[in-house]
Amino acid sequence: MSLVKVIPLGGCGEIGKNCTVVENEDGLIVIDVGLSFPHEEHYGVDIVVPDFTYLIENKDRVRAIFLTHAHEDHVGALSFLLPHVQAPIYCTKFTSAMVRSKLEERTGMKEVDMKVTQPGDTIDLGSLKVEFVRVTHSIPETCALAVHTPHGVVLFTADFKFDFTPVDGKLSDVGRLTELGREGVLLLMSDSTNIDRPGWGPSESRATEGLGKAVREAPGRVLVTMFSSNIHRMQQCVDVAAANGRKLAVTGRRMETTIDICRRLGYLNIPEGLYVRLDEIGKYRASEILLLVTGSQGEPMAALSQMSRGEYNRLKIVPGDTILYSARPIPGNEGAIWRTINRLVLQGANVVTESDSPIHISGHAYQEEIKMMVNLTQPFYIAPVHGEPRHQDLYRKLAMAMGWPAHRVFTMANGDVLCVDDTKAWIDGRVPSGEVLIDQHGNAAVTSKVLADRSALGHDGVVVVALGIDPKEGTLTSKPEAHVRGFSGPDTAIEDALDDLVDALAKLVPSDLRDTECVEKLVKSVVGQTISRRCQQRPVVMPVLVEA
Amino acid sequence: MSLVKVIPLGGCGEIGKNCTVVENEDGLIVIDVGLSFPHEEHYGVDIVVPDFTYLIENKDRVRAIFLTHAHEDHVGALSFLLPHVQAPIYCTKFTSAMVRSKLEERTGMKEVDMKVTQPGDTIDLGSLKVEFVRVTHSIPETCALAVHTPHGVVLFTADFKFDFTPVDGKLSDVGRLTELGREGVLLLMSDSTNIDRPGWGPSESRATEGLGKAVREAPGRVLVTMFSSNIHRMQQCVDVAAANGRKLAVTGRRMETTIDICRRLGYLNIPEGLYVRLDEIGKYRASEILLLVTGSQGEPMAALSQMSRGEYNRLKIVPGDTILYSARPIPGNEGAIWRTINRLVLQGANVVTESDSPIHISGHAYQEEIKMMVNLTQPFYIAPVHGEPRHQDLYRKLAMAMGWPAHRVFTMANGDVLCVDDTKAWIDGRVPSGEVLIDQHGNAAVTSKVLADRSALGHDGVVVVALGIDPKEGTLTSKPEAHVRGFSGPDTAIEDALDDLVDALAKLVPSDLRDTECVEKLVKSVVGQTISRRCQQRPVVMPVLVEA
Repeated sequence: MSLVKVIPLGGCGEIGKNCTVVENEDGLIVIDVGLSFPHEEHYGVDIVVPDFTYLIENKDRVRAIFLTHAHEDHVGALSFLLPHVQAPIYCTKFTSAMVRSKLEERTGMKEVDMKVTQPGDTIDLGSLKVEFVRVTHSIPETCALAVHTPHGVVLFTADFKFDFTPVDGKLSDVGRLTELGREGVLLLMSDSTNIDRPGWGPSESRATEGLGKAVREAPGRVLVTMFSSNIHRMQQCVDVAAANGRKLAVTGRRMETTIDICRRLGYLNIPEGLYVRLDEIGKYRASEILLLVTGSQGEPMAALSQMSRGEYNRLKIVPGDTILYSARPIPGNEGAIWRTINRLVLQGANVVTESDSPIHISGHAYQEEIKMMVNLTQPFYIAPVHGEPRHQDLYRKLAMAMGWPAHRVFTMANGDVLCVDDTKAWIDGRVPSGEVLIDQHGNAAVTSKVLADRSALGHDGVVVVALGIDPKEGTLTSKPEAHVRGFSGPDTAIEDALDDLVDALAKLVPSDLRDTECVEKLVKSVVGQTISRRCQQRPVVMPVLVEA
Repeated sequence: MSLVKVIPLGGCGEIGKNCTVVENEDGLIVIDVGLSFPHEEHYGVDIVVPDFTYLIENKDRVRAIFLTHAHEDHVGALSFLLPHVQAPIYCTKFTSAMVRSKLEERTGMKEVDMKVTQPGDTIDLGSLKVEFVRVTHSIPETCALAVHTPHGVVLFTADFKFDFTPVDGKLSDVGRLTELGREGVLLLMSDSTNIDRPGWGPSESRATEGLGKAVREAPGRVLVTMFSSNIHRMQQCVDVAAANGRKLAVTGRRMETTIDICRRLGYLNIPEGLYVRLDEIGKYRASEILLLVTGSQGEPMAALSQMSRGEYNRLKIVPGDTILYSARPIPGNEGAIWRTINRLVLQGANVVTESDSPIHISGHAYQEEIKMMVNLTQPFYIAPVHGEPRHQDLYRKLAMAMGWPAHRVFTMANGDVLCVDDTKAWIDGRVPSGEVLIDQHGNAAVTSKVLADRSALGHDGVVVVALGIDPKEGTLTSKPEAHVRGFSGPDTAIEDALDDLVDALAKLVPSDLRDTECVEKLVKSVVGQTISRRCQQRPVVMPVLVEA
């Protein structure tokens, strides 16, 4: 029997978060096709998607795409893959509705081969069978995927937690997870996001209490900021608004669209008359309003960030407003979030964060929940995924503490090929993988060269050195002139650099001057070196030769 | 009797952190002269110092400078102030030694009028008398300052906590704080850094236990990263190294200098033979080494960051190394810190952070300690300082919960003038204040214009448009050409922009072309608009006219 290969393909520093491949000689299936958000060194980058080279090179072998749940980091890159790779997409009804809406919004794509499945269904692709197993998470109808192979089950936990009082009342199918464990799980591909949190995480329903308390204590309007995909949290806000005699309004188009879809399909239960448009809230008293707003990560153009700067025309923050941060900061965003909060406080708002009150609950398993997953499914091999290397390392220690020997825990990198047969598992080589940086226009044009240039430009600015040249005669037609932007060194450093350049140019003979590339190199090195020597700065030096 | 004015002058988003002024008609005293570190929007900025305009304009009235403790955010900007303002500097012996060393290193300045005081001393400046009161903090000889004025005492807590088992055994002088409270504290200027942490903070001595446990469990070398000013933590590492049969070595010049000063003056007690040079560690087994390393904040050029990238020539990370993060991330640095940790883990290191084990303890008071300070000193007015607006807001709520009416708690901004007389306090106007951004060269040249340019350059890159022009004749001598760096839009966007520019230039008459400023404006607007329309990007457009 042929090998089974499991390949985490993308996640922007997080392993297999956005996309993973399972294949054998009969073909290849894709699990999740998501995107990541840029970190602060990704200058001018809008989103980060996996490098799909391997899938595109093997597009004829791709038999199906499976989606575990509707979060952007698991479905958001479909619009980049589908133009190259055609395959049916299997997912639950809720995921399907969210994906359809996003694809239509982003690409106008309406014809998508989506097959709606239910938790418990198994899709039979011959030597690979994929079973959907319900788990709890912060979005409806999340499913772990049990890939039945001739060598045993490869179990993808998806993003999960064990929440016994979830908002939608639908519990994880621990019975089926246990059965799978008894039948024999060969390899557990496990969520490791919260592996650094000890204990068992609180139930999402605790956030209802926290939100309820904060709303009852609020004298005026309440603004709740969260991820626009957090459907359960939205339902909790709806419930809290209803219980406290408040109307619900939202800002941000993505949030509006999500609410529309969820209401239509019954995933969000909003009492008649509760939901009002943003331009209607003036009809009500401040204490009768609860608003859902985007901007929980301090994103500069999001509604809440604009409000903090007084630039959001449709709503101004006033003293007495209460703002609830019902989201966890993504590492690196803390600075921007605190600056936003300071601006809101200075406008008289009362800002409540997770550290003050339980108004946010994580959707990911804590340490004891992860141990429970391992205990239920009794995998022979474990590969922690969805986290960064530091999470994988902690997971490895946790598994070893539970008795798993080190050689049965694989801490993989994106692109690593994990091979499994009847007797063992091993990593054998790599396939192309990596990050493709997408700009605001949706183009994959932010190369590492562009990024390095932006970093240098942003750090020390740019010095443009222009000179007129007659390349035919090999003569200069004007003296070099400098133009600077974003440069903070002294003017004299530039003057010295130009003097040194004039001296260096004077040593050139006409044949040198006919070689524009040689002149450009000279400008870069002389000007760059003099400026660096004079003021320890390294602006980008751009020679511009204008032919007379 | 004349008014007393209290003016927080600087702190880069934190109020009165770096510098505060107290004045009356007899003159002006300065409390602390520190610097701040840039946040991630401060492109290419090395340090941030307060705008000292107000002090320089009033330099003849400055009677003395008082330093509460030797941390950079309280003393690090002296080299920027002293060239403009001469006044005696009062501080404890330890602070004096640290400041002298830094001033000599940074400016070669040897003649400084420093007057060494002891906790308990009072400096009599006539109508203002300044008393040093010992408090506990993460650096030796930290003192609160009680400024005795004709209207009562203005009490600056300095950075403080109530640690009953400090590393140096020297407790806060709570007796004197109580007496001051009984005599009558008019205004409490209180540290608010940890106002968001409930309870009473743990003693610094708990870090000795945490570090000891981590070191005992480490199979190989131990690298401890911390701020180079954390003298108590260094002593704990010395003690732990000695107790576990390890030699101590350090990386980073600042850390070496600090250790030298502290040993010489007896603030650091290192057993004979324990301290070895970095190039000597090869003589010992891995399990006999403990290293102090810089880089706890993920600073790209610090030793630990270079080690994580394999670029630190004097020491390579090997599997079996244990790295202890004995410092709190400054908000905004989390992303860089986690990326450093991931790289260290991938090299086989075992990384331990504060969340795993108590190897870092904050030097600032938690909520109950702050309440104790308020309770001991019974201030009539309170002004929370050292924090951001969000901290001040939490402090205001805390004080109100303790029974202080809202009008007796001032949440000031830097530059606000708080006036106090015998019957009341009020904010009356502002003095110049703000941030001066200093580049790597020590120049205050990073203006807001430079910063805005760097931000734009770093986001979308630069497009240089060069054209030859004969301004006397009013004719173009070459077609416009574009040079780009850090731009990720399509080439066709640039081509379209140049086409549009050629069309626009063709409409100009010779008198227009003689006006180079007008031509430059046209280039900027036409090229900028076309690119923005074609690909939603806004690179910096630089027109470069070369005269034929």
